[in-house]
Amino acid sequence: MTRSTFVNVDCAVAQAVEQLGDQWTLLILRSAFHGIRRFDEFREHLNIAENILTTRLAKLVKAGIFQRTQLSQDKRVYEYRLTEKGYDTYALVVFLNQWGERWMGKPEGERVEIVETISGRKVQDVRVLSTEGRVLNPRDTTMQHGAGRSAVLDLSRNILARRRGPSGRSASDRH
Amino acid sequence: MTRSTFVNVDCAVAQAVEQLGDQWTLLILRSAFHGIRRFDEFREHLNIAENILTTRLAKLVKAGIFQRTQLSQDKRVYEYRLTEKGYDTYALVVFLNQWGERWMGKPEGERVEIVETISGRKVQDVRVLSTEGRVLNPRDTTMQHGAGRSAVLDLSRNILARRRGPSGRSASDRH
Repeated sequence: MTRSTFVNVDCAVAQAVEQLGDQWTLLILRSAFHGIRRFDEFREHLNIAENILTTRLAKLVKAGIFQRTQLSQDKRVYEYRLTEKGYDTYALVVFLNQWGERWMGKPEGERVEIVETISGRKVQDVRVLSTEGRVLNPRDTTMQHGAGRSAVLDLSRNILARRRGPSGRSASDRH
Repeated sequence: MTRSTFVNVDCAVAQAVEQLGDQWTLLILRSAFHGIRRFDEFREHLNIAENILTTRLAKLVKAGIFQRTQLSQDKRVYEYRLTEKGYDTYALVVFLNQWGERWMGKPEGERVEIVETISGRKVQDVRVLSTEGRVLNPRDTTMQHGAGRSAVLDLSRNILARRRGPSGRSASDRH
């Protein structure tokens, strides 16, 4: 089900999730990074129903993630090519592949390895890094207001303050 | 709508997407990294309907992403805490925040900045890096079979070979 509830949420994660937070959408992106470009190719690669594929591709084109291009050599053929914004989801797809292998791996080993072509060496795990390149865990980092400050951060701070307040419980926990 | 179509797909991305590829699920994870832990806190932070939140949290607990814990100080209160597997989605949430800011940013600037606590410096953009730390684009990398080889990669290779074959078009494009 595609909803559009999150368009007006003042949170960059919500904005991203509005466009990317869908199982088929994420698998379509994966297939695109496999080199898949055409409607019938996506249908075959994903084993997806035509109407679902049509809806998802239209939404991705509207979001500027794919560009629909008519082939100059054959006007009957269209291709869905990743835009710059679409290519910029690469780390997301690589992360999902790595996380899937880490937590739902097969005993034999990794299904697909992503390697740097010139060296043949596997890419690094996609992680959050400090400016010096140290791996950072959630506990090493802080979320703070940027210039485009959003109420979402104030809300989480209020909720945490209430939980840690004199009563030690938020009012709502009494329900 | 929660389906379970992807559980049997032999692809790590599909396995990850099965557990994470949902708008509310991704926003629940975001809220968890904001420090939110309790049912009523998630409800308030996300402005989400109770039944939707219940379903999503149950699925996340079943997937081993959250652990539901009864507070020892007050047996009436339960907390949903990220497991190690759940914490391991941090790069995904940071990526979504950064991608959302890059492509759906506000003119004033970033809503939320994620900084390394000890240095106060913003974390790096979440990217795919080579072993030496160079940023890799999709064109710099190759997908290859690992020991747990999957038919998904063979299928994309077949599709691309057919497209690039003598006719220059895949048979299915004639439809």
